[in-house]
Amino acid sequence: MPELRLHPDRMLTADPSTRAVARRLYATVADAPIVSPHGHVDPALFVTNRPFANPAELFITPDHYVTRLLHSLGVGLDALGLDPSDPAADRRAGARTGPAVPALAPGPTAAQDARSRAAWRELARVYPKLAGTPVRYWLDDQLAGVFGLEEQPSEANADAQYDELSAKLALPEFSPRRLLARSGIDVLATTDAPADDLGAHQALALHPGVRAAVVPTFRADRYFDPSEAGWPASLEALAEASGIDTSTYRGVVAALRDRRQYFARHGATSTDSGVVDAWAVPLDEGAAEGIHRRALSGPISEADATAYRRNMLYRMAEMSADDGLVMQLHAGVLRNHHAATFDRFGPDTGHDLPVSTEFTRPLQTLLNHFGTNPAFRLVLFTVDETSFARDIAPLAGFYPSVFVGAPWWFLDTPDAMRRFREAATDSAGFYKTSGFIDDTRALCSIGARHDLSRRIDAGHLASLVVRHQLTEDEATVIAVDLVDSIPTSTFRLEDARSRP
Amino acid sequence: MPELRLHPDRMLTADPSTRAVARRLYATVADAPIVSPHGHVDPALFVTNRPFANPAELFITPDHYVTRLLHSLGVGLDALGLDPSDPAADRRAGARTGPAVPALAPGPTAAQDARSRAAWRELARVYPKLAGTPVRYWLDDQLAGVFGLEEQPSEANADAQYDELSAKLALPEFSPRRLLARSGIDVLATTDAPADDLGAHQALALHPGVRAAVVPTFRADRYFDPSEAGWPASLEALAEASGIDTSTYRGVVAALRDRRQYFARHGATSTDSGVVDAWAVPLDEGAAEGIHRRALSGPISEADATAYRRNMLYRMAEMSADDGLVMQLHAGVLRNHHAATFDRFGPDTGHDLPVSTEFTRPLQTLLNHFGTNPAFRLVLFTVDETSFARDIAPLAGFYPSVFVGAPWWFLDTPDAMRRFREAATDSAGFYKTSGFIDDTRALCSIGARHDLSRRIDAGHLASLVVRHQLTEDEATVIAVDLVDSIPTSTFRLEDARSRP
Amino acid sequence: MPELRLHPDRMLTADPSTRAVARRLYATVADAPIVSPHGHVDPALFVTNRPFANPAELFITPDHYVTRLLHSLGVGLDALGLDPSDPAADRRAGARTGPAVPALAPGPTAAQDARSRAAWRELARVYPKLAGTPVRYWLDDQLAGVFGLEEQPSEANADAQYDELSAKLALPEFSPRRLLARSGIDVLATTDAPADDLGAHQALALHPGVRAAVVPTFRADRYFDPSEAGWPASLEALAEASGIDTSTYRGVVAALRDRRQYFARHGATSTDSGVVDAWAVPLDEGAAEGIHRRALSGPISEADATAYRRNMLYRMAEMSADDGLVMQLHAGVLRNHHAATFDRFGPDTGHDLPVSTEFTRPLQTLLNHFGTNPAFRLVLFTVDETSFARDIAPLAGFYPSVFVGAPWWFLDTPDAMRRFREAATDSAGFYKTSGFIDDTRALCSIGARHDLSRRIDAGHLASLVVRHQLTEDEATVIAVDLVDSIPTSTFRLEDARSRP
Repeated sequence: MPELRLHPDRMLTADPSTRAVARRLYATVADAPIVSPHGHVDPALFVTNRPFANPAELFITPDHYVTRLLHSLGVGLDALGLDPSDPAADRRAGARTGPAVPALAPGPTAAQDARSRAAWRELARVYPKLAGTPVRYWLDDQLAGVFGLEEQPSEANADAQYDELSAKLALPEFSPRRLLARSGIDVLATTDAPADDLGAHQALALHPGVRAAVVPTFRADRYFDPSEAGWPASLEALAEASGIDTSTYRGVVAALRDRRQYFARHGATSTDSGVVDAWAVPLDEGAAEGIHRRALSGPISEADATAYRRNMLYRMAEMSADDGLVMQLHAGVLRNHHAATFDRFGPDTGHDLPVSTEFTRPLQTLLNHFGTNPAFRLVLFTVDETSFARDIAPLAGFYPSVFVGAPWWFLDTPDAMRRFREAATDSAGFYKTSGFIDDTRALCSIGARHDLSRRIDAGHLASLVVRHQLTEDEATVIAVDLVDSIPTSTFRLEDARSRP
Repeated sequence: MPELRLHPDRMLTADPSTRAVARRLYATVADAPIVSPHGHVDPALFVTNRPFANPAELFITPDHYVTRLLHSLGVGLDALGLDPSDPAADRRAGARTGPAVPALAPGPTAAQDARSRAAWRELARVYPKLAGTPVRYWLDDQLAGVFGLEEQPSEANADAQYDELSAKLALPEFSPRRLLARSGIDVLATTDAPADDLGAHQALALHPGVRAAVVPTFRADRYFDPSEAGWPASLEALAEASGIDTSTYRGVVAALRDRRQYFARHGATSTDSGVVDAWAVPLDEGAAEGIHRRALSGPISEADATAYRRNMLYRMAEMSADDGLVMQLHAGVLRNHHAATFDRFGPDTGHDLPVSTEFTRPLQTLLNHFGTNPAFRLVLFTVDETSFARDIAPLAGFYPSVFVGAPWWFLDTPDAMRRFREAATDSAGFYKTSGFIDDTRALCSIGARHDLSRRIDAGHLASLVVRHQLTEDEATVIAVDLVDSIPTSTFRLEDARSRP
Repeated sequence: MPELRLHPDRMLTADPSTRAVARRLYATVADAPIVSPHGHVDPALFVTNRPFANPAELFITPDHYVTRLLHSLGVGLDALGLDPSDPAADRRAGARTGPAVPALAPGPTAAQDARSRAAWRELARVYPKLAGTPVRYWLDDQLAGVFGLEEQPSEANADAQYDELSAKLALPEFSPRRLLARSGIDVLATTDAPADDLGAHQALALHPGVRAAVVPTFRADRYFDPSEAGWPASLEALAEASGIDTSTYRGVVAALRDRRQYFARHGATSTDSGVVDAWAVPLDEGAAEGIHRRALSGPISEADATAYRRNMLYRMAEMSADDGLVMQLHAGVLRNHHAATFDRFGPDTGHDLPVSTEFTRPLQTLLNHFGTNPAFRLVLFTVDETSFARDIAPLAGFYPSVFVGAPWWFLDTPDAMRRFREAATDSAGFYKTSGFIDDTRALCSIGARHDLSRRIDAGHLASLVVRHQLTEDEATVIAVDLVDSIPTSTFRLEDARSRP
């Protein structure tokens, strides 16, 4: 049976002389607190603190990084516990359109447990085929490092490990709050709808059992595309939350502005936008109002929908230049590629896919208006890594407002993180990069993901030391800054981190 | 005189600790049989078993990888033996439009020998300038490893080496069949026109002197673009082969479907399509029939030609979902860039060139229809390597039908193969990649190409072992799978490999 | 205080066995003369030989590589000495539209010195944040290697270092001519407007104190876009210089042809074009004449401007095929991204930014007409590195006229130069690459930039030796050729280098 062991030097460069330096650099940051400025953990987890019922609920069902890989190896999503009637799927959908604190699932029934066990068996069966992927690396790290497993999952041990993990998850020390604490998380940013009342965040801010600052992030994407099915309902929710009539474009903008302030008062320091392209093009109010009106009364053209979206992205920047919320821009993802999967299982089920992405031209107008405004800050994320060296690092190497977002999603992997450093440092240095983001729904993987990032950065810095581009003293300062002052200042988290 | 020596550790990583692991991994696969699921060797070579007349005929004239580099260094293609009146050029063209078993060249005349010798001299003269290219690596490997040369080709030794190689090629042990056998080839897929009667394959299937399974691949590209000069003649050939009237679009589709079954009965397990872009867009039958009819009576618009091609690509997928032939898609090559060279020397003469290529959007319709169909399988090849991490690996990391095609053509080189593994493994692992393909017309280079791929993969796997991402036991299993079960199952070659 | 030390092995690979080889390879070229076939140093510097007044004038103000990074870290360009009223800014603008030998600035006044000192302080303050960038590497190299500083610039030592450097710059051994000589520059190509009388070049050709060949490069970009504000004035200057009426398109072409010959007579061997895309599309004379006429009388459409530009690029190739001047093509830069900065500080102020760039399709017509013409030579430069492996190296791997331009601007950095070699060698080898270009306005950085390139190439070649792809003897020959015969022959500088 293949054993599961975490080597202390894992992911630190092969060359022994470089590794010796990397090991020292890594040691200086291995236990540093985690600043997680972008992710998708449900804050209600920590309010209710309901234990995870079984390992499938913790490691598989909510994590589309895992389910997409298993699906690619021939495992049906239904066999992994995804189902429209599954509360976990509801929660995922809820994170986009549902109430602020979704109703949590009741305790597991026998049928649910059988399904979860079957999902775990599928993971165990294909575990060897995950070799080399970051998903496998993160799972190894959690299973061995957090739960003390000593064997790789396999068909032979699937039931035994399922039972062992289920038993551990029932213990207080593996409750959501304790998992949060043991990860060393200092700041955890969530992603939240504008109409969210942030009740969970408010509860957590006062909660003696939660040391971490759990801060919301304002994500208004659902107001970008008036041709989406959920748009009218979202408008209503926004009107209700803000007390502002959202039947006009002007009203939507006013309501969003109002809710940004509400978010800021409850700890938010940034917004996020996920878009298929980075074009930000202002419309005059009449034109925007016209599209808004037409969309309320029926289908609109694709050109109208695109123009409306690109204008809204521009308005997000305009508001950021006013209120100082850091603007995160995650561009280049085509959502819901496979219609049948979307229809059956909903969004965020593993078939959001990267497309070719540019920033230099699409952001020119936006940056001409706000790029040198000291209040404005823009963090650019891509899943088309050709844009790191070509677009993003050169933009961040001129505009004081622009920062290079860490490699994300398909790119938060060992080799891609190394390529990112090599592509971005040349043009923008270390101090115009954002610090690592984990972007995860999978609470327990946060520690593993940040740890991996620290190991890769230590190796990269060590390579600069060994080739005499930096002294080791300089590299040590940078290694610490990358996990501390850089994410803190990039995302304006100074206040969040200084609370008692 | 620079000597020619093959170091046993060649191409295995620089770092000594990694190399030690790589050496062991490589040793486990160094002598494994070769599965070659995609290439362009003429099967008639093994039927007639006529010896190669001289080294130019074996190493230079038929291999556009070689001729393009020499041309780029100022050597005219005519000086390399290419000529419309040259039987080798006929054979090349024949592989696309000619009869199933082209007439082979008669024995060399003095004039032909003088021309071949001159071509060899040109290669020898510029040999130092090929340093660092894969062409040079493959040639070194063949000249030293197969033919026992001990000096690099040079102007000084050109005539002597030409004579020595010519003499060896006349020996039985260097006949086409013996070269095939000594390469350790277990399966050799060729590329064949739909109208081909597969006579050579039939002869070889029964031939006691040929152990390898030589299987055809169905390549219907000539039916994709009705604006190509050869289209009407191709239609006629197809009608004759299938006995189905091809004067209508419906007829062409029926005839292609018929010929796919013929190919399958004669051992084919896959099809291939080489297209300038990957868009697959179904037309309704009336529209397709209209373009077909217009094309039969005169020139058609570029838009019509494109729509017809993209529909045909879609129909190939549709048929694969029916008959289970694996669909290979080689996208992103602009054929025949230099018109004067094409006019004089024909196709496949070194100026097919890569263009920017995407897959995520172009294949969305196709994958929505067939992507989760268990009968369907799609192997995606690109020469724009930005699409590995951005498009292909993410698609293969969700759709069970999609596999990441090995780096190909401009990318089947040491550094590009390493970059491929680093770009694809993150999103898709090893088990959604296709296994190596050599894509060559140059029989004798097959062994060298597969050997290089095994060395690079051994080095890559070793780097994962040394950084503790995999155990050496796991890496050993993967190294073996990459040359055995992975290509066998990806291309559905189980039957071909199990014949007695 | 962090010390400033140049390690002799800096930038030579981490792996000790590779480094040992790299060290020997580097040693063979470390002191070889510099051939600089493309750059932007003002030749008048060496005619007047006026000393640099202070380190800001040498290291900061004229170098947009430096100012953009400082700007990105929040330092205003005005704080760095850039100003429309600044003679340095005039000189920069002058290099594009001004007289051949611009009037040089008077000696520093107290106010100018205070401003320069403040600029130096800003650089010193943010120096630690430049860690890892090539700008930092080049500055370290110059400050320690040329000026003997032993501490990194910092807020604490800013004034002392400013004074020390200013004092040294007043010494004869740091005059422009002596800096040129001590860099070991054998050929220095400048970039010059067609109407330039090349007076500085003529003076230098006869000057006993200047050993280097300072040769002009013909850059006609200002005649490409008739919608640019300066176009009419440029036409007048051209008419005056050539004695040919430039009020017609035909006249412009004739005048450019005439000036190319003037340039060739004064030592030019190449032309340069910097364009946002590489499309070269001939217009018939009537169409070109029509756009020309419309542009003289008022604003023209963007489509007209684009068509005119693409035709002019084609005409440059046509003329090169006639007169044998090597055609340099620097494609893919969007100039003057930030309008407010352009309006205040002029061009070349750090916000020219890369955009996605292709070559295979855009150059097809041009290469069909001239690609195999022995008189024609085309060196392709990109700042979108995806085009190295996809477009440029494959083009250079077929067309004898095409050479792969060295990594440039955002890509002349350690990691990007390594990636370049790995991407280009596979398809094109070493001998179809151009040799390094420094592309700099910053005289004193030329030595540091070429030295860095030699170190990276030594490391790359060493890695090929250690993995047994090349012998060390072969690698040594290539290392020498890369700095000597390759740039000399690519840019046809044989005559320039053989003058007594």
